Amino acid sequence: MTAKNKPGLSIRIDLPGGGRFGPGKAALLDAIAELGSLNKAAHELGMSYPRARKLVEEMNRDFQTPLVLSSQGGADGGGSRLSDAGQELRDLYHQLCKRSLAHNEALLARIGQVTNQAPVPK
Amino acid sequence: MTAKNKPGLSIRIDLPGGGRFGPGKAALLDAIAELGSLNKAAHELGMSYPRARKLVEEMNRDFQTPLVLSSQGGADGGGSRLSDAGQELRDLYHQLCKRSLAHNEALLARIGQVTNQAPVPK
Repeated sequence: MTAKNKPGLSIRIDLPGGGRFGPGKAALLDAIAELGSLNKAAHELGMSYPRARKLVEEMNRDFQTPLVLSSQGGADGGGSRLSDAGQELRDLYHQLCKRSLAHNEALLARIGQVTNQAPVPK
Repeated sequence: MTAKNKPGLSIRIDLPGGGRFGPGKAALLDAIAELGSLNKAAHELGMSYPRARKLVEEMNRDFQTPLVLSSQGGADGGGSRLSDAGQELRDLYHQLCKRSLAHNEALLARIGQVTNQAPVPK
């Protein structure tokens, strides 16, 4: 078995009150951090702007401190950036995913052995 | 902070060819193992029978050996049970979830501290 047919993990954090933080929101935080704009981040991810806006509103509501800060006006309609809390949550999420993969290598290798699915050709 | 407002994890395994195995399919395997019937398992989970059937077909296609074995006829339209492969995958999945939680206790406690969400009242 090569590394190519090892399964991956998609992890969602289920917050105590019913909110959720998973791969989609994490990717949006990554893209906002990189591009400095919610509009550009949505475009980069192939996500509609209203959808991206809704995810940001959920995140800002679900945590004590807003994760994404947006300023009004300017050519881009103002930019967006991560708050300290947004950066921390993004780091925590990526650490969590990395640790979950690292601590389950043997299990995932076994699941890779019993899957019927050839890796997607590149 | 009490254990009640600690976040949980929902984990999906992404198979190399694009198939997915996550909480919904795992719950369906659990219910089939417990109830011995796809129909009863679907009912128990509040899932339509066609939806449950589709998930079983996906699982049986995604792995080298079918995970769910169904027999024809009888009052229940025949029963369903897990194959050895189905039992193994179910066990591997639950182990993976348990290990991911155990190895991320501190991270999840920190995320619980910054969430704005009160636990859902019981």
